[in-house]
Parts: sequence; structure tokens; C-alpha cells
Amino acid sequence: MAKRGRSQESGEDRLIARYFRPIAQHPAALSLIDDAACLTPPKGHDLVLTVDAVVAGVHFLPDDPPASIARKALRVNLSDLAAKGAKPLGFLLTLTLPPNTDATFLKPFAKALAEDAKAYGCRLLGGDTTGTPGPLTISIAAFGTVPHGRMVRRHGARPGDLVMVTGTIGDAALGLKVSQRAGLIKQWRLKRGQGAFLVERYRAPRPRNALALAVRRYASAAMDVSDGLAGDLAKLCRASGVSATAEVAQVPLSPAAATALATKPDLLETILTGGDDYEILCTVPRARATRFAAAAKAAGVPLTIIGRIERARAGTAPGEARFVDASEQALRFGRGSFSHFN
Amino acid sequence: MAKRGRSQESGEDRLIARYFRPIAQHPAALSLIDDAACLTPPKGHDLVLTVDAVVAGVHFLPDDPPASIARKALRVNLSDLAAKGAKPLGFLLTLTLPPNTDATFLKPFAKALAEDAKAYGCRLLGGDTTGTPGPLTISIAAFGTVPHGRMVRRHGARPGDLVMVTGTIGDAALGLKVSQRAGLIKQWRLKRGQGAFLVERYRAPRPRNALALAVRRYASAAMDVSDGLAGDLAKLCRASGVSATAEVAQVPLSPAAATALATKPDLLETILTGGDDYEILCTVPRARATRFAAAAKAAGVPLTIIGRIERARAGTAPGEARFVDASEQALRFGRGSFSHFN
Repeated sequence: MAKRGRSQESGEDRLIARYFRPIAQHPAALSLIDDAACLTPPKGHDLVLTVDAVVAGVHFLPDDPPASIARKALRVNLSDLAAKGAKPLGFLLTLTLPPNTDATFLKPFAKALAEDAKAYGCRLLGGDTTGTPGPLTISIAAFGTVPHGRMVRRHGARPGDLVMVTGTIGDAALGLKVSQRAGLIKQWRLKRGQGAFLVERYRAPRPRNALALAVRRYASAAMDVSDGLAGDLAKLCRASGVSATAEVAQVPLSPAAATALATKPDLLETILTGGDDYEILCTVPRARATRFAAAAKAAGVPLTIIGRIERARAGTAPGEARFVDASEQALRFGRGSFSHFN
Repeated sequence: MAKRGRSQESGEDRLIARYFRPIAQHPAALSLIDDAACLTPPKGHDLVLTVDAVVAGVHFLPDDPPASIARKALRVNLSDLAAKGAKPLGFLLTLTLPPNTDATFLKPFAKALAEDAKAYGCRLLGGDTTGTPGPLTISIAAFGTVPHGRMVRRHGARPGDLVMVTGTIGDAALGLKVSQRAGLIKQWRLKRGQGAFLVERYRAPRPRNALALAVRRYASAAMDVSDGLAGDLAKLCRASGVSATAEVAQVPLSPAAATALATKPDLLETILTGGDDYEILCTVPRARATRFAAAAKAAGVPLTIIGRIERARAGTAPGEARFVDASEQALRFGRGSFSHFN
């Protein structure tokens, strides 16, 4: 008690002031100097609330670049907002840091987070920073807005609706494998740059927020593809009380994924069930399909029809999502979708 | 691909359905079956947003009862809402589980969380559950409401205001020591039950949400005491551009803390800087002090005047919070407040 006190400003306060205060420019953030953020919700709107955590060694690789980790942590949440038809507003950040985390991590992490927050219009509103004896863990709670009552649910798919998906499927799951075993680039006969493309798709999702407004206007149901296309389509069907048939040949693949699949046909299961795609899966009534496709084109988002919604078959529980090959045979997968708890 | 597929419902889905869907009764939660919650904010109100994480081995002890862990995870956030004058509304839960976490943990954890959610009117709106190779980590983002523009900030303290604190200070910091070394019960000459009392104060904070409305009506500035009374009072002073003098003899102590302090006077630093109190620290203009005290009494929340706000002294930076003893000597602490990053 007698010894000379050091500055009363704690290390945690300094860390926040240095790296995160500069990127918390939304007025609701109160410059991160209070106990809480204070948000005045826009009139006539609902708030769409989502939370997703990423853990080193589980959702990203411990030696992924700090900028990629920041992007992934925020973008997995932005992808949920996009699929719900919501406009991003802001987020709360929980940063759980292993010992000796220093500026070599924090500086590029905060910079990439700031860039994404600006690019997607999703601002840092508050957070908590703490130490852990375990792996780096980042939880982000993100908020978006929709006009009252207009959030796009999973449960609106009706028989006859078309099943559509944005972008390409399977890249991230293949990219994870390549990250872990560089020899696969040769084994899969990937062309120049295709290995790096797949790895980047794993590291930094490209959420489809540009399509959110069109999803709200035209989709009957939507969700983002995070746990694998096959399992996620089944979830959407269960929520809607319907079934679906998708054609494997219609599932959009990147040139890299197509090359790998041509060499190793067994990779089809990884592509369809591997997860981490962060594309939008949605159902659209036929009468609105043309307008939706035009809106996607205008937004610069690739969109593919992969199947159709059907009545749940008599005697079976709803939620069957069949993927059929060219001979109309339904594939069977060893695992429906990615899960942390098997 | 040829093998018989197992249920497409994943382990994560089952875990959520079993333990958390039953406690997610707020309509905004959408029964946890969608990608996001959808909240219609109450008209004319702001949303107060806060997030706090607790990590096993950092914020609680790995062998603390699961029910205590649940209470602590939610209540540290409820305490922030109380200090801001906000009425609790709901929360998003990130549950990061080590391998082999099973029903022996999840069942009592979910039960205690449900009880608190109901008791404090702060409902589960959504969440994310994931595995980790590290320690159990729980992050909660909590939301409360205040009439527009009425959130109580840290920055409103003015010279002449009284400095007040709820409940008793130092119990949790002493309780942590006792948890780690049972021999201290004897060393500190604690009486029957006092050791258990201190440990319980560490394990499960008692947030002062009953006082939130009065804080909003009468306080000029407020925050919760989480990082130690001395450091937190300094933070409030810095935010307000003022200084403060508090009298050590006025700091409210439980009988257990008073017994320990009488035996070991050196514990004063632990009491004043140890943190985890989750009491409300606030400043109140003298003219409103009597009404505030009456409101606290009516709410059943003990309230003590510990000092006064003063003009920042010329030539010194604002934010000086002096704790003086009976001879008007200011104490000096080795550490201003708890921080994870020193």
C-alpha cells in the first residue's frame, strides 16, 4: 500500500483506446468510454440480432493472418444479416486473448476489422477484452435493421418454389483441406492460383450483403450456408414443413472446386456438406424468380437455381432435402452437416 | 457417400433444442430455430447494449458449480444495465464448451440461467454454441431499454455531488482468496459461515437492477464496480473531468469483510481494488440525495455515501480519486484496478 502507484489507467483500457476506440465512430458506441452502448433504433424497424463465435483451431487456423481472422469473425455474422434481408448496423466484440498477444496481432486485426466495418456499414458499438489460458476466441454479436415485420425467415418455403444459392459452394471446405495439406494442390491437379483461391475462401468469407434487399423483396425463405449446403437445405425444409430436391449437377462450383472434383469425385461429399460457404440459400416463388435474378445481376451477385421445393412426402417427416445425380438417384451422405457436437 | 446417413439433425441442434429452446420464450427469440432473433424495439426508447465474457480460471474457478457460473455470466451484464438505469430486456449467449461437456454441466447451467432470465426479466434471444480445446468461455451480450436519451452516463458527475455505493465492497475479492486457500478462514478469524458468504459473493454477484429506475431519476453519473472501487471511481472521475475524495472509513463492509480487515489490515487494498463487486457506484447532486436514499430504501438496496466530487485540482489531470484515512492521508495503491493486461 505504501508503494508508489502506477497509472490508474489499466492495460485493458490502453488496449481499447489504442486499437478499438479509433474504429468505434458510430454515435451509439459513445467512444467506448462508458459501460454500455446506447442505440436509438430507427423508427418503424425491427432489429435483427445474431451472434457467432470463432475459435482458433476450430473455425480458423492459429497461423491464419490476423486480418483474415478479423474478417472471418465479422463476416460470418454479416452473412446471417444478409440472409435475413437485414441492413447491417453495428456489432459488439468479445475478444478473448491468449497470453502475450501483442501489437503484431492486434494492429493488423483492428485495421482489417475497421475496413470491414466501414465497407459493410456495420460499426463497432462496444466490446469486452479479456485474457484466456486457451486459444484466441472471438465472439461477435451483430445487429441489423429491417422494416417492421420484414425479416426473412427460414419457414416460408412453399411447394413449387425454386431453390437458389449465391456464389459457389464447397470452396472453403476444400480450402481448409489444402491449408492443412499443401500436397493436395498437386494431388487434385489444381491449376496455378487455384490452391490459394480455395484457402482464401476458407479464411475470409464474402458475405452477400449486396443481395439483402432483393432477398427481402423476393425470397419466401432464406438462410446462410454455414454448416454445409445439404444439411442447411434440410434445416430450411424442416422449418418450412416441406421437402426439396436439388440437382447435384446444378450446384455452382468455382473452377478450382470443379478441377478438384474432376480429379477426385469423392470430394463431392466435402463440397456439399463441408460448410463455411457463407453464401445465401433461399427459396423464391416462380413468379418472382425473374425479378430476383435481375436484382442479383444488378447487385453483382452470382445466383443459381439448384432445385425445387416439394410437398413433404406422405409418411415421412418434413425436412428431406434430396440431392440427385444425373440418373435421378439420391445421394446419401455420411454426415448431414458440420457440427461441433456429434 | 454410400453409407447410410445418420440423422440430419446435428449434435449442436440437439443441444440447443434440449437445454436452451425451453428457456427462450421471448417472441424475439423465434424459438431459436432461425439464424437470428428479431426484436421490435419499444417505441420512444433507446437500447442499452453491453457485453461481458467470463472465462474458466480467469473470472470463475473451473470447479465452481455450473449454476453459479450461469448466474455470474448473466449477472455481470445485468449489473451494467442496472448502473446505466436500463430495464433488462434480453441477451445473446455464446457458449464455448471444452470437450466432453455433458448434461452434468449443461442441465444445472441452463436451469440457473432460466431462473435468472425470468427473475430479472432478461430473456434468452439467441446464441451460438461451439467447441473449444481451451477453457469454458461464456460471452453474453445483454440488452436493456431506457426512455430515449435517458441512459445514465459516466460523465455527468459535478463538483459538490455525493459519491455513493450500493451494498458492500470487497467481499468477492476476499471470497476469491478464500476459494483458493481455505486456510484463510482461520487466519482471518472469520466467524461461522463468513467464509462461505465471501465465496458466494465471488461466485454469484447480486446485481442492483432493483435500483435502476432510481439511478435514472437521481444520479448524475453511474457505473458498476467491476474492476475495484478505487480504479472505477477514478474512471468515473476521468470521464466527468472531476476529482473525488472518498473516506475509507465510510466504505461499506460486510461483517465478514470487516472481521478479515480487523485481523489483517493489509487486506484494505484487496477490498478497495480487488474488483468483482458488481455494486453500483454513482454520484448524486446533494439536492436529490434524500429522495435517492428513500428510493433505495424502498427498493431494499443498501446505499452508503462514501465521499464527494471535487473540482479537478489545478495542474493535475482530472480523474484523481483519493481514498483518505481518518487523518486525511490519501492511500496509495500498488494497482489502481483489476486488468487482464498489465
